Amino acid sequence: MTFELLKIDAATGARRGRLRTPHGAVETPAFMPCGTGGAVKALTPHELETEGVQMALCNTYHLYLRPGHRLIEELGGLHRFMAWSGSILTDSGGFQVYSLAPLRQISEEGVSFRSHLDGSLHFLSPELAIEVQKSLGADIIMPLDECAPYPSTTDYLQRSLGLTLKWAERSRVAHLNGQPALFGILQGGTDKALREQAATALQKIGFDGYALGGLAVGEPKAVMYETVAHTTPLLPVDRPRYLMGVGTPEDLVESVMRGVDMFDCVMPTRHGRTGSLFTSQGRINIKGAAHASDERPLDPACDCYTCRHFSRAYLRHLFMAGEILGLRLNTLHNLHFYLTLMQQIRQAIEDGSLTAFRTRFLEEAGTLNRDETVA
Amino acid sequence: MTFELLKIDAATGARRGRLRTPHGAVETPAFMPCGTGGAVKALTPHELETEGVQMALCNTYHLYLRPGHRLIEELGGLHRFMAWSGSILTDSGGFQVYSLAPLRQISEEGVSFRSHLDGSLHFLSPELAIEVQKSLGADIIMPLDECAPYPSTTDYLQRSLGLTLKWAERSRVAHLNGQPALFGILQGGTDKALREQAATALQKIGFDGYALGGLAVGEPKAVMYETVAHTTPLLPVDRPRYLMGVGTPEDLVESVMRGVDMFDCVMPTRHGRTGSLFTSQGRINIKGAAHASDERPLDPACDCYTCRHFSRAYLRHLFMAGEILGLRLNTLHNLHFYLTLMQQIRQAIEDGSLTAFRTRFLEEAGTLNRDETVA
Repeated sequence: MTFELLKIDAATGARRGRLRTPHGAVETPAFMPCGTGGAVKALTPHELETEGVQMALCNTYHLYLRPGHRLIEELGGLHRFMAWSGSILTDSGGFQVYSLAPLRQISEEGVSFRSHLDGSLHFLSPELAIEVQKSLGADIIMPLDECAPYPSTTDYLQRSLGLTLKWAERSRVAHLNGQPALFGILQGGTDKALREQAATALQKIGFDGYALGGLAVGEPKAVMYETVAHTTPLLPVDRPRYLMGVGTPEDLVESVMRGVDMFDCVMPTRHGRTGSLFTSQGRINIKGAAHASDERPLDPACDCYTCRHFSRAYLRHLFMAGEILGLRLNTLHNLHFYLTLMQQIRQAIEDGSLTAFRTRFLEEAGTLNRDETVA
Repeated sequence: MTFELLKIDAATGARRGRLRTPHGAVETPAFMPCGTGGAVKALTPHELETEGVQMALCNTYHLYLRPGHRLIEELGGLHRFMAWSGSILTDSGGFQVYSLAPLRQISEEGVSFRSHLDGSLHFLSPELAIEVQKSLGADIIMPLDECAPYPSTTDYLQRSLGLTLKWAERSRVAHLNGQPALFGILQGGTDKALREQAATALQKIGFDGYALGGLAVGEPKAVMYETVAHTTPLLPVDRPRYLMGVGTPEDLVESVMRGVDMFDCVMPTRHGRTGSLFTSQGRINIKGAAHASDERPLDPACDCYTCRHFSRAYLRHLFMAGEILGLRLNTLHNLHFYLTLMQQIRQAIEDGSLTAFRTRFLEEAGTLNRDETVA
């Protein structure tokens, strides 16, 4: 993997770059949709390509449990399995163990847990996380870490970061060769000193890119933005920076302005399936009775497949009737919104107009972070 | 609507024809997928077009209850609502009232029932069925009838047919002008004398096409085929013949050979959603463990999107994981199978090779009517 920095916005520090992996270029700042269990929910890989997705995230936890990384490896790897020719970043599985799996127990050695699917007992170590991700054939892989809950005491955060750093070192050793790219994950919650410690320790080990973990876990937005702003200057300029699991459209804009290059989030796809739809005029809950006879497209400013062909009234009908097509059309629209936003952000950095773009975007789509009142 | 008969197969009586509606040509014999509630489940209208669908069936019962025919009419009609530029045939709503709605009561005047959605009380008369379908803007509409269960006594069938014929007459009167096309529905179960009576009475009223209702409701296949074979010669040569709610791929071949021009059935789409997939080598239940590591496409002889890009192993994984994409890919494949079959049937009639096609088809896909043994 290579990372080329094309421009740094003088006013904000926002970065315009280009990752290259064995599966092509990824223009940054980039948004990666979540292909949790080997599919971005409701969409085909060719729709992702059409929408301009260049890298998808897949979840090691899900694929390890079902259908199993060995099977995927035997079948030629994850790209071939899901017929996706773009790049893939996999996470370590840790976050899902902490959020989905029952009876998890963290020790120095790793984390034991039961499968949320069948209750079977498993043990994930930093070494196994690397092995699984290499079996899958991802382009960028992540080390096992502990994502501390918010709020945590400084003492807990300190011990947790200590474990994450030890695991980072073991992951680096387990990785052996330079393929695929391995990122380091900074933890430390919202504690600036701990974030500094993480940045220093991880760079000493040396990684191909650096991720900010443990954010967007309940802390106030302002605190998250401040933590990002404090942390990114501690990272090497020539390596990509990835803010994990973030976020709302506003979060993307704000974080790019604080020096982040990569994002992933279930928000556009999950919200699509619950009928919460992003538009240039704010967020719409398509269930609302107000849309029942509304002939307009979701977003007159949008040129996605959904908005070019279907009315709000039809989308509401599909949603109320539980039609799969509704979930498809909603997901496609939300993903298009996110990818268009990233395209606009990249353009604004190139044009030197990011600050103006941010102001305009937040004015027009000021309700993006909250649902409209359902009629 | 016009119907042009292009060729009658001398050996079998199978017919190659062309319907023309205000929404284009429909090559017959034709299969209409079910767009029950204003969407062919899991598919976009543009996928239908790509697959070669020329006419879709929509269910009056579903659309009358949700979102309501008046709303669809206000929004410019069903074609515009669902963004489908091909032809639409709507049923009368009767069949769904009998099969889905609780507390239905049939009288001379019509049928009262409660909505399966919210329990609300409704009354469907022959006149209302026509009015609703005209509001929707369908290209071909159907009169309210009674579909007698199987088995029924001759006495019941006789009285039921009497009601259906009275309703047919009232529907013809309610229809007033010639737009859209109105078909008559023959009932009479598997009683040949009653089918003859139905054919005579309906032609006396005069319809734009003739449908065989009340079949594929539990009677043995051989009896259904015999009833079809007995009835089609009683119908005018120059009008299309529609076998309602049929059927398996084998049913389509056998019924075309007995003079049927049009079909609809939920089978390809519903079976797609349950993982039962049609192939040139028989039916496959994708849930089967035997497919877990199978790299082959569903059907190596198939050129559908699903078979061109994905392995059985991936399709099984998607199905087991409950991924919406699996339902999409399965549905697309099954529909492609049905439409390819109809294309082959039309070609075989043109080539005068239908009998040979039937033999080969049933040999190769001999297991199409039953599931494979699930491993």
